[in-house]
Amino acid sequence: MVTRRMILTRLGMAGGLGATFGAMQALGLAGTAQAQDMSDLVPTLGRGRHVVVLGAGIAGLTSAYELEQAGFLVTLLEARKRVGGRAWTVRDGDKIEMNGEETQTAKFSDGVYFNAGPARIPSFHQGLLGYAKKFDVPLEVEVNSSRSAYVMADDGSKIRMRTAINDMRGRIAELLAKAIRKGSLDTELTAVDREKLLPFIKAYGDLGEDGSFAGTERSGFGSAPGAGVTFASPSTAMPLDQLLANQRLPMTLFEDNLYMQATMFEPVGGMDRIHAAMDNALRRPALRGAEVTRIRQRSGDVEVVYRDTASGAVETVVADYLICTIPFPVLAKIDTNFSTKLKTTIANVQYDYSNKVAFESPRFWEREQIYGGISFVGGPTTLIWYPSAGLHSERGMLLGCYSSGPTAAEFQKRPIAEQIAFSRGVIDKLHPGHGADLVNGLAVNWHKIPYSLGPWPDWNAGSANGRQEGHIDTAAFRLLQAPEGRVYFASAALSQTPGWQEGGIQSARAQVLALARRVTAEALVTPAGRRAA
Amino acid sequence: MVTRRMILTRLGMAGGLGATFGAMQALGLAGTAQAQDMSDLVPTLGRGRHVVVLGAGIAGLTSAYELEQAGFLVTLLEARKRVGGRAWTVRDGDKIEMNGEETQTAKFSDGVYFNAGPARIPSFHQGLLGYAKKFDVPLEVEVNSSRSAYVMADDGSKIRMRTAINDMRGRIAELLAKAIRKGSLDTELTAVDREKLLPFIKAYGDLGEDGSFAGTERSGFGSAPGAGVTFASPSTAMPLDQLLANQRLPMTLFEDNLYMQATMFEPVGGMDRIHAAMDNALRRPALRGAEVTRIRQRSGDVEVVYRDTASGAVETVVADYLICTIPFPVLAKIDTNFSTKLKTTIANVQYDYSNKVAFESPRFWEREQIYGGISFVGGPTTLIWYPSAGLHSERGMLLGCYSSGPTAAEFQKRPIAEQIAFSRGVIDKLHPGHGADLVNGLAVNWHKIPYSLGPWPDWNAGSANGRQEGHIDTAAFRLLQAPEGRVYFASAALSQTPGWQEGGIQSARAQVLALARRVTAEALVTPAGRRAA
Repeated sequence: MVTRRMILTRLGMAGGLGATFGAMQALGLAGTAQAQDMSDLVPTLGRGRHVVVLGAGIAGLTSAYELEQAGFLVTLLEARKRVGGRAWTVRDGDKIEMNGEETQTAKFSDGVYFNAGPARIPSFHQGLLGYAKKFDVPLEVEVNSSRSAYVMADDGSKIRMRTAINDMRGRIAELLAKAIRKGSLDTELTAVDREKLLPFIKAYGDLGEDGSFAGTERSGFGSAPGAGVTFASPSTAMPLDQLLANQRLPMTLFEDNLYMQATMFEPVGGMDRIHAAMDNALRRPALRGAEVTRIRQRSGDVEVVYRDTASGAVETVVADYLICTIPFPVLAKIDTNFSTKLKTTIANVQYDYSNKVAFESPRFWEREQIYGGISFVGGPTTLIWYPSAGLHSERGMLLGCYSSGPTAAEFQKRPIAEQIAFSRGVIDKLHPGHGADLVNGLAVNWHKIPYSLGPWPDWNAGSANGRQEGHIDTAAFRLLQAPEGRVYFASAALSQTPGWQEGGIQSARAQVLALARRVTAEALVTPAGRRAA
Repeated sequence: MVTRRMILTRLGMAGGLGATFGAMQALGLAGTAQAQDMSDLVPTLGRGRHVVVLGAGIAGLTSAYELEQAGFLVTLLEARKRVGGRAWTVRDGDKIEMNGEETQTAKFSDGVYFNAGPARIPSFHQGLLGYAKKFDVPLEVEVNSSRSAYVMADDGSKIRMRTAINDMRGRIAELLAKAIRKGSLDTELTAVDREKLLPFIKAYGDLGEDGSFAGTERSGFGSAPGAGVTFASPSTAMPLDQLLANQRLPMTLFEDNLYMQATMFEPVGGMDRIHAAMDNALRRPALRGAEVTRIRQRSGDVEVVYRDTASGAVETVVADYLICTIPFPVLAKIDTNFSTKLKTTIANVQYDYSNKVAFESPRFWEREQIYGGISFVGGPTTLIWYPSAGLHSERGMLLGCYSSGPTAAEFQKRPIAEQIAFSRGVIDKLHPGHGADLVNGLAVNWHKIPYSLGPWPDWNAGSANGRQEGHIDTAAFRLLQAPEGRVYFASAALSQTPGWQEGGIQSARAQVLALARRVTAEALVTPAGRRAA
């Protein structure tokens, strides 16, 4: 490891950070850190330099860890009594405090917990998975899709996921086979393609020899196979109009959203295990209960004033640089000497809404052979998400709501008790009689959570176009990518995936690399020997 | 528990076993135990009766456990030094002995093991899952499908599962949308269906506004999203002919085989954990190393002679009834006084072939973001199955072959070293350079495994029709469902799913219920008080 890290890295030199930076510039990506190989940062790079990092969510923890690896002295300030930010695992006895609401206290049995923020990690989020591996955080599979879950229509009728997926596939294959056989697609398909496509379509839909769809065992048994001559039979095929009548039918495609594809992970015991392990790996772990009240950038340093929430004492940190990961609506209320343009930009970032409602319950869903996965129910609560943790144990956490956007903005206006009651009602609609099994409901409305004030920004709020092809590229977004003087901003909010922890890691690494480039450039102008004198 | 079990159960009485049996008769299922509620067997039912059970695979363990619960005295004989039968977990130091082959010895690092037989449990196999739960066997998710795995064509070209699935879905949707828009399916679809179907098809294939397919992010990123203005772009769409050219394309449907659908399980630490726990729960655990040499049925009892393989001592057990779970090719060689018809039937049951090849390796596949799941490679080795156990650890077991049928019959003719080398070669073809990572290869050819002599019967071997719609219904199969005198046969081989442990449980329960009915009937004729006199 040391040999790799000892590579002398300078701007303009071949290999290492310089070469990476050069490549980024060539691609027009300067400052965005497309390639984020942190291992080329030499461990002496930051010697004698102090960085204060604000916020110990994933972006702050990443910044602090990578800066420490690069030899910086780091002070990490966190307003809450815990690290992790939105990666918040609520356990028995934990309090949910929200602006304008009475405090809720979690009551959970042993082993039951609630990831109020992020709750799953895709295979390709190698930054976060890499930290989990580096810090020996045990992972387990997050079952994001179960064929036994349901899509529920507005009228309360429900179809098992296996039936919705495979009967619809059968109907689609049947129609396409008919069109091909009729010759309707002869201009689109070569004779060779047709010849190869037809048998595939037959397999695709599990069609009969005549190309018709008469039901498939993929959708479940009509009767199950057993001992002796207890034969299996396929389930009866659902008519096309009945399938299409279910408004949630498109949610059968959810599992093929790239961010939702198997294999997905969760840390054993709660999402915040990763953040706790990262904090634990810091030479100087986060100072908790440190509520920042004032930021003053000066010509040669940055001064941060914070209040220790436990004692009320007011403390000051002076550092060479600052990386701020504080959510913008929170930062907007802090006394700073940022430029007016920057202040205005920060104040105008609008945050989205997101809600979760969780219950503890005996695992009645496992008696319906649902082990993990998600049922889609529509309406204000959107889904019912079954736990992947503790499969086969007695009790578990059932998520009765996860929504965001305008739906969530409306729902969070309801009193907490009503949010919980509504969610219970929907669960009871899908799983009749089991609303009564649910105990100790909790509602989290992220827009009301202190130190967060929302789950992520809605960068295109108010724009006539809305989001264009999922790209985030507003003037405000671009402005906040660059430092103002000695102050850098890092956050999932400043990535293309504000709703994913990986975005926070990417943003933090980009800012650390930007700071490293600056420090490297300064060292070239002012050799370390002269600086120390 | 006691109250429930104390229900007095008699033939002809309402409730309990009698009612179940009645219902079965009405459905024409008598003797096949469609409904297998064992909890109605009264715990005094078998009092004073002794049953010898031969073979401690899942069928034997189920028989022994359920008979003990119903008050029988049970002697369970197992020829091997372990229980589990085909549910065989090979761990470091274990020996693989096969007829006509040199003994292989497993060399595995800590935590690495190889399920040489069954390795996954579907959600609907509630018999086996129920025993796992009852005996507190920890389960973990078996990742049977990963979007990061591959389908490999005969020419070695490969497509990620996510691309094969979603690009093909895109192409299918595109073609169907065109046919519908042309009016080619106007006779098949009502105007209402058409109006609802088109938007669904667009979502189904992730089509553009014009109904064309130009690639989808579901198939992977062209470029991945990052910090700042590092935008995501979808991957390029694969042409239809290129998709169809991959002979493994139909394997994208494997995950929707009902037996293969999420959520699937595996016991933590190896499949045999369930069997070890069941054996441990018996009042009289299996006698191991008890090789049955002779079975004599007499008018009032059954005598079983066995050789203790450790000492060579010959022992005799006399019991009232016998449940035999010994595979038929093995049973055919045992000295019995079965009727000639039964002997001939047993001797003529042909068993299938099945092979597995396993390696230990550093987890190079996880660096390709493959966490569990299966790549399909065709040819003699069929697949590459990545481990779901120990995700994110350093080393793991990679399965390089799992095949059965004629393919397996041919492959097992090769020398063991060649089987291992061939499998290594295929892995190297899919994962270039990584054939060299594979160490300590092991090959298991079930047809050569003593006390098994095959994985399951091929009931329709030699039949002109082959298997009809997956139903097993031959004269031999029917004959073996019924007892001959005091001898009952139980095995997955006697269920509709000979390749699944659940079939063994169903068959065993059916035979236990049949025996319970017989004992109940006898008790009505000969009250217990008189019998004891």
